[in-house]
Amino acid sequence: MTVYGALDIGGTKIAGALLDPAGTTLTRTRRPTPARRTAVELMAAVFSVLDDLAAHRAWGGLTRLGVACAGPVDAGRGTVSPVNIPAWRRFPLVDRIAEHPRLPDGVRPRLVGDALAMTAAEHWLGAARGVTAALCMVVSTGVGGGLVLGGTVHPGRTGNAGHIGHMSVDLDGPRCPCGGRGCVEGMASGTAIAAHARAAGWAPPEGVAPDAAAVAASARAGDVRASAAYDRAGRALAAAIAATAALVEIELVVVGGGVARSGEVLLTPIREHLATYAVLDFTRDIRVVPARRTLDAGLVGAAAAAAPPDGPARPQTHEGHRPR
Amino acid sequence: MTVYGALDIGGTKIAGALLDPAGTTLTRTRRPTPARRTAVELMAAVFSVLDDLAAHRAWGGLTRLGVACAGPVDAGRGTVSPVNIPAWRRFPLVDRIAEHPRLPDGVRPRLVGDALAMTAAEHWLGAARGVTAALCMVVSTGVGGGLVLGGTVHPGRTGNAGHIGHMSVDLDGPRCPCGGRGCVEGMASGTAIAAHARAAGWAPPEGVAPDAAAVAASARAGDVRASAAYDRAGRALAAAIAATAALVEIELVVVGGGVARSGEVLLTPIREHLATYAVLDFTRDIRVVPARRTLDAGLVGAAAAAAPPDGPARPQTHEGHRPR
Repeated sequence: MTVYGALDIGGTKIAGALLDPAGTTLTRTRRPTPARRTAVELMAAVFSVLDDLAAHRAWGGLTRLGVACAGPVDAGRGTVSPVNIPAWRRFPLVDRIAEHPRLPDGVRPRLVGDALAMTAAEHWLGAARGVTAALCMVVSTGVGGGLVLGGTVHPGRTGNAGHIGHMSVDLDGPRCPCGGRGCVEGMASGTAIAAHARAAGWAPPEGVAPDAAAVAASARAGDVRASAAYDRAGRALAAAIAATAALVEIELVVVGGGVARSGEVLLTPIREHLATYAVLDFTRDIRVVPARRTLDAGLVGAAAAAAPPDGPARPQTHEGHRPR
Repeated sequence: MTVYGALDIGGTKIAGALLDPAGTTLTRTRRPTPARRTAVELMAAVFSVLDDLAAHRAWGGLTRLGVACAGPVDAGRGTVSPVNIPAWRRFPLVDRIAEHPRLPDGVRPRLVGDALAMTAAEHWLGAARGVTAALCMVVSTGVGGGLVLGGTVHPGRTGNAGHIGHMSVDLDGPRCPCGGRGCVEGMASGTAIAAHARAAGWAPPEGVAPDAAAVAASARAGDVRASAAYDRAGRALAAAIAATAALVEIELVVVGGGVARSGEVLLTPIREHLATYAVLDFTRDIRVVPARRTLDAGLVGAAAAAAPPDGPARPQTHEGHRPR
């Protein structure tokens, strides 16, 4: 049987799995990420996860190995520089993983950023299944995303395409830590939502952390300062979604990530503000739905990204330059 | 010999040409557009142009016919609604052209919007030749554009992808006639540049029309109000280019259209402001160059858009969902 391997490397855990071509998980494992340790210790943890997988009887069928990693990544070069893993800067993760002694000959690890992995997972087995053109976003501490174009995930040359969090929607807006101005992330990340609510006088109940989830709870309870913070986030996301639609034409937006767990508190303002920003004939009627693969997007997406042309994500020929 | 046919339909003229697979024009013809007349009279003018082409000896080799038309177009449905041709609203241009009695069996007209035609022309035989990922823009009375992704022109479902003029770069900005807010076109079109300069107190020399070309001449002569209008246009374009790069990854921007004829007056501020907005590892170092096919982009682009998979524009398989 053909087996897909998947690694999902984040700031807190390193997860691994083997999946069959239908996307069913055959085995999974995880280790804590020694995020503040050396590059060597980090790789030892990655190898431990691979050792666990290699001990499974399905390992013999391994034909592909996908690796999702916290960004930034350079998929073209196979290097990673995760913000929360300081010892890895332009670290040659693909080459190091390829040195694992039990990796079958000819299996070259394929690297994707975590937002693109989420996109591949939603396109393979989630809310974007069967969709030709979609934007999938991760609204969390930051804001990331990925694109499905022409029925296939569009990584771009370095694997960073779909990076909606650093689109500017306010060219006179405040400086973003990235160096730009008026980036979506500065209004729509969980951090930004909580900061905006607090600046407006909102405070969480005694003993509750002042985070985006607490703001969402207050918004649901009718706190207008909390609602305003989500409205502002929804407006920034709507402007960026509309710009995305004008630029590449999309029919669907899938919203995942920790902040998206607040559900309609975030989705409703996005939909309302799209009525202002997405008004061209070909940008209207974009559906906005929650992500479905919230628990295993990294692993499922890594497997999808590693799949062969006839594999799970069914990459199709791009729709090409000819309108039909 | 294989021959490509091309029509370019605008508000002032209807042009036609036959081209060989290398892009050499074998014959060309044009008629004035009876833009204020009925749909029937308009089609009669289109048929006259086709009659001219059909009289050429190369017509017998016609295998494809591309049709570039002023927008909006719906390439999926084959309909057009050109702003400057009021009698055509959701007009079934492809079906009507297909009724021309001398069109060879099996030659189905392929419709593209004029900005996408410009993109296809630059990609086939112009400044974007051989480039994998580029944004081509037309800065004129309005602002349009098209994308090259994965080595092939990306039309989107309706053929309107790349519509950079109606990306919002200022979510609190003024209402755009399209219904949106803070659209690029409101700052960067020729109309907007002239209006901004005039509002700042600029006036053209006696007897010169107060248009973007006159503003450019004043800017070159050191008029700071004129320069400021171009700087503002360049800033809006730079913010949208940076957003495009974050979203799809591009390596090149090609700038065409009437306003782009002012050359460095527009290109220099675009490049300068990109240093503010395009600051991520994968969005830096975007080249900004003038268009090369300024005289025949519509015809060359229509031919490119009509070409078969092994034809001039060499559409390639989309790079797919797998980073390498």
